Amino acid sequence: MTDISPVPLTIEGASVLHQVFEFDWKAWRGSPDRHRILEEATAALRELEPGKQSEGDQPKTVQSALYSVLGHKGDLMLVHFRDSVEDLNRIELALAQTAFHSFLRPKFSYLSIVELSLYESSRKTYASLAEQGLEQHSPEWNAAIEKVLDRQREAMAQRLFPSIPAAKHICFYPMDRLRTGKQNWYALPLDQRQQLMHDHGMIGRRYGDRVRQIISGSIGLDDWEWGVDLFADDPVVFKQLIYEMRFDEASSLYADFSSFYVGIRLPIDQLEAWTEGRIGDAS
Amino acid sequence: MTDISPVPLTIEGASVLHQVFEFDWKAWRGSPDRHRILEEATAALRELEPGKQSEGDQPKTVQSALYSVLGHKGDLMLVHFRDSVEDLNRIELALAQTAFHSFLRPKFSYLSIVELSLYESSRKTYASLAEQGLEQHSPEWNAAIEKVLDRQREAMAQRLFPSIPAAKHICFYPMDRLRTGKQNWYALPLDQRQQLMHDHGMIGRRYGDRVRQIISGSIGLDDWEWGVDLFADDPVVFKQLIYEMRFDEASSLYADFSSFYVGIRLPIDQLEAWTEGRIGDAS
Amino acid sequence: MTDISPVPLTIEGASVLHQVFEFDWKAWRGSPDRHRILEEATAALRELEPGKQSEGDQPKTVQSALYSVLGHKGDLMLVHFRDSVEDLNRIELALAQTAFHSFLRPKFSYLSIVELSLYESSRKTYASLAEQGLEQHSPEWNAAIEKVLDRQREAMAQRLFPSIPAAKHICFYPMDRLRTGKQNWYALPLDQRQQLMHDHGMIGRRYGDRVRQIISGSIGLDDWEWGVDLFADDPVVFKQLIYEMRFDEASSLYADFSSFYVGIRLPIDQLEAWTEGRIGDAS
Amino acid sequence: MTDISPVPLTIEGASVLHQVFEFDWKAWRGSPDRHRILEEATAALRELEPGKQSEGDQPKTVQSALYSVLGHKGDLMLVHFRDSVEDLNRIELALAQTAFHSFLRPKFSYLSIVELSLYESSRKTYASLAEQGLEQHSPEWNAAIEKVLDRQREAMAQRLFPSIPAAKHICFYPMDRLRTGKQNWYALPLDQRQQLMHDHGMIGRRYGDRVRQIISGSIGLDDWEWGVDLFADDPVVFKQLIYEMRFDEASSLYADFSSFYVGIRLPIDQLEAWTEGRIGDAS
Amino acid sequence: MTDISPVPLTIEGASVLHQVFEFDWKAWRGSPDRHRILEEATAALRELEPGKQSEGDQPKTVQSALYSVLGHKGDLMLVHFRDSVEDLNRIELALAQTAFHSFLRPKFSYLSIVELSLYESSRKTYASLAEQGLEQHSPEWNAAIEKVLDRQREAMAQRLFPSIPAAKHICFYPMDRLRTGKQNWYALPLDQRQQLMHDHGMIGRRYGDRVRQIISGSIGLDDWEWGVDLFADDPVVFKQLIYEMRFDEASSLYADFSSFYVGIRLPIDQLEAWTEGRIGDAS
Repeated sequence: MTDISPVPLTIEGASVLHQVFEFDWKAWRGSPDRHRILEEATAALRELEPGKQSEGDQPKTVQSALYSVLGHKGDLMLVHFRDSVEDLNRIELALAQTAFHSFLRPKFSYLSIVELSLYESSRKTYASLAEQGLEQHSPEWNAAIEKVLDRQREAMAQRLFPSIPAAKHICFYPMDRLRTGKQNWYALPLDQRQQLMHDHGMIGRRYGDRVRQIISGSIGLDDWEWGVDLFADDPVVFKQLIYEMRFDEASSLYADFSSFYVGIRLPIDQLEAWTEGRIGDAS
Repeated sequence: MTDISPVPLTIEGASVLHQVFEFDWKAWRGSPDRHRILEEATAALRELEPGKQSEGDQPKTVQSALYSVLGHKGDLMLVHFRDSVEDLNRIELALAQTAFHSFLRPKFSYLSIVELSLYESSRKTYASLAEQGLEQHSPEWNAAIEKVLDRQREAMAQRLFPSIPAAKHICFYPMDRLRTGKQNWYALPLDQRQQLMHDHGMIGRRYGDRVRQIISGSIGLDDWEWGVDLFADDPVVFKQLIYEMRFDEASSLYADFSSFYVGIRLPIDQLEAWTEGRIGDAS
Repeated sequence: MTDISPVPLTIEGASVLHQVFEFDWKAWRGSPDRHRILEEATAALRELEPGKQSEGDQPKTVQSALYSVLGHKGDLMLVHFRDSVEDLNRIELALAQTAFHSFLRPKFSYLSIVELSLYESSRKTYASLAEQGLEQHSPEWNAAIEKVLDRQREAMAQRLFPSIPAAKHICFYPMDRLRTGKQNWYALPLDQRQQLMHDHGMIGRRYGDRVRQIISGSIGLDDWEWGVDLFADDPVVFKQLIYEMRFDEASSLYADFSSFYVGIRLPIDQLEAWTEGRIGDAS
Repeated sequence: MTDISPVPLTIEGASVLHQVFEFDWKAWRGSPDRHRILEEATAALRELEPGKQSEGDQPKTVQSALYSVLGHKGDLMLVHFRDSVEDLNRIELALAQTAFHSFLRPKFSYLSIVELSLYESSRKTYASLAEQGLEQHSPEWNAAIEKVLDRQREAMAQRLFPSIPAAKHICFYPMDRLRTGKQNWYALPLDQRQQLMHDHGMIGRRYGDRVRQIISGSIGLDDWEWGVDLFADDPVVFKQLIYEMRFDEASSLYADFSSFYVGIRLPIDQLEAWTEGRIGDAS
Repeated sequence: MTDISPVPLTIEGASVLHQVFEFDWKAWRGSPDRHRILEEATAALRELEPGKQSEGDQPKTVQSALYSVLGHKGDLMLVHFRDSVEDLNRIELALAQTAFHSFLRPKFSYLSIVELSLYESSRKTYASLAEQGLEQHSPEWNAAIEKVLDRQREAMAQRLFPSIPAAKHICFYPMDRLRTGKQNWYALPLDQRQQLMHDHGMIGRRYGDRVRQIISGSIGLDDWEWGVDLFADDPVVFKQLIYEMRFDEASSLYADFSSFYVGIRLPIDQLEAWTEGRIGDAS
């Protein structure tokens, strides 16, 4: 056993819930109360916006956004960022109180927590603490690590508790790192993973002006290890970025992908227009 | 790191949505308003035809086609080519406004964007820019690449924004390139992939007079990496072409296939006849 | 590149559709019109029998058969052999016109085309044409191949457009040839595949008096590469034959199996008895 | 090709059908006719007991048993042993005639035939016939084999047409033998498989007083190769036996498992008590 | 064959059932009898609490807890610890008697038995018995083993029949040990597995003050080999602990994970508040 932990230092931020619903168009078309139901729903969804949710401490993050989803995987996607998993459950229960909820059939959801993996900092910190002769997980080592994490949490607060980008399109997908035969991410030394993540990040950086990315971790929370949200005005960029990344070793050798959900931002106030078949008219 | 990017130059065209529906025959047989519902549906589906959709700029591509699908995977398939993902979502919402939609249960869909991979051009361009000493992703390199892409986009405009072939049968299937152990497409050098795609294309060329092919990319858009549409008057050709290709290294070693959807072209005006059990009577 | 194609010469015959339905017993028990519905259904199903279907050219094959399926995968299976995919779609639409169809829930289907792989003939023909110095896919080569195929199509007409055997039991299953690592059927030389198929066929021959087999190809038509229909009076033979074949290299190394559907032949005239719980009384 | 067949001699007995149903508790609670429906169902299920079924030859095996299933995979499981697949289908159709059937939703089923693999006998017989110079599958060889099988069928009649053990709990699971890379059961020589099955059997023997096992083969009949039924008064023994076996090479290297179904024996006469929430009161 | 068994000594305790239900919010909102239904349900769920269940011997464990589940996998999860599988089935049937059950749709369940794997004790015991010249599975060997197990069962009684921790959050997931190629847990020598489990346990110990863990075995009982329940006040700890463990060889090489279910403890008395959208108000 070396003095270098294989586990990258990681800091966590907002709790995240993605909810994908199929809309029961048939029941909706037959419903006599559409306008009243939409008024109640729109009010409830507006309640999810900043500053309304928590009555205790001022929450760091109250961010929800609605998207019109492409294809049969669903019709509407809600993305929520909150301070806690419990707050996310409260949103689910609040939504379930509305009449609009009767027209929503849950098709998919994803629970995760915004995270930043501090690969470069991990490598340096572990090396430095090893040089100082501190034993891993000793009280001194723990204290030193905690100090690094605290400093990073403060420096990265805006990325840990992000605002939802205003971009017109979203692309969400869960993913794993492979653990099969020689393609075992978790058996690689930290140094190598740091290098792979660095190269991977360099591709993302070249797309930085066209796409915003939020990574959330879901090990122990949902069925894949990470959730990735991409936000862009032009959805072709999703394809270009992820295609280019697929040739990167971090992806070509070590990534396993689940389903991809693509949606178009739907301001709450345009929900009624959406039910009538209109989208993006104001843009 | 070499100066040769592994990523083939790729140009994009029309946004594509495949929609597969099961038809609720039981409810249909019990519906008193069949004729009126069909009139409304036929009118709405005709609206999807060229020149009606967009009110802003003249769209490059407004192409939709309807197919009668074989087997339990669905009864009807709609294939749409449009200028944007947003336009595709508008089609979904427009269809959801019709009474006919109550008889359609979504079974499958696929979102993709027509693409052409310029393998030969990539190889030459990357080599030439490397010879000129241009660093990858430098402003000069980017400008040179963009120039190549623009020239190709113009030259290939008809293939990027294609008309839907009038052939009697369609075969649609999504597919991946493998990334397992030694069968890792994304870990092959560009030269080798170029050669494999060239050999692969030679098979297709021999079938050129009997089958038309449209490739669309879906990395970052849907659950597989590519969608393939084949159009042919004789469906036996689908089997012969894909069987022959399966022995090709690009397929035998590196292709992973999903479901196959086979359908028979159904002109909008024959939708009523279709509901009454008649198909292809005019052919 | 050698002058020997890896693709075996293959001839095609009848188009085939398997339809597996769950029967809605609950709705059926509650239906007041059972007798009338059965009369209409029985008449429609009899229409599927020889000589009634096509009004144009005399079809080579109009063969349909009904089976009572074991287990929860379905209750009824219809197997149709026709001249074209379009004719198969017409059957689906015709069935959908009956009231009986309201009690059928589609659970599975399979689209394929009867095929014979001419491995021995391929090996000899390719070798002979190579000796003659004909280049693959040259006009002369193509003409010579087409001549072989035509001769075989004529000689094999009865196997390409088969009658459905009268045997009491059916066993249907789709299957693939593997393409994983060293178990890659499509990467084997034609000679080796010819030998494996020969050994495989020798097992089948020993069961020839107890079981009839029809192979149909479904690459490009459905989700597996082949469909296999076995017909036997004693269903134990299905188990014995397929178990013995599993030790054969063609199966042990290169076969991947999907679901198995086992049914008991149900003459159309016994459909009413079947709904009342009686089967095989006359046998 | 050696004179030793890789296929173990195998003898077959009763045809077996497992049926797993979800019980529609909601509809049941709302049904006014519960008592009458239960009377009819109990009578029908009693009909499945010995001596009532066949009117022709006296059947060797008429054994059915009912189980209350744990968890969401189902509520009730029926296990039937009969002389033929056709008799099993008759049971399905008979059950479908009852009003009780309206409350049963099929969740799973499994079709198989009781079998005994005569590994030790195979090895000896094949060796002895080879010594005698008999060619495999020659008429003399076939006759000699048939004689061995007949002798074994007679000796093993009770195990081939077993009574359902009275034990309080059942554990049913389908399984395959692997055929992947080096873990290919079907590519092992018969001798080695015989040794592995012998070691495997030795573990079972140590549990012989606490658990009864019935193996049925389902190659060519259902989606896995074998079905395993274990019967025990104490369900902890299922876990202990199968855990111990998992370290055995026959399992650790060559077994692939599907779902496990665990149930508690429910005498027909206690079906009404079961619907009222009581189970095992008499035990 | 060595005298060292590969099977770790294992002791079993309480039988466990996890039940995950979707709540039919639409039907609930439309139900006129909500208050009465909740009164009955709350009473029935309270019956599941200690001391009410069994009328025979005093049960060692009667522990049930209710959780509000995150996401579309379900809305409510019930976790039951009992003395027997039969008692667990009684709970299912008791719940099915309530009107509240009509609003619950089973989505998932898991049957298992609390277990402790005595790796260190196994190694020592097996070595000592081998030194004494006792043959494995001989009566003397069995007696000696049984003595060790009895002693451990007594010492570990509280962990075998645990109380459900009062922590605010639960994380439940089933898992397997891999048996593929070189990553075959069951083919490792006992010594190596003991070392891997020891290292694995050391990580858990560091989280001991923040998370409680209960391991139950499900080989032969359900579709995965083990069920893991984690209990913590802060759900971020689930992610941190399991992420850190994933780098451990026991997980990185040998673990295969299924779905993860995360919930928030819901005291029975707050069920009505939950249906009205309130959760955790008292905390």
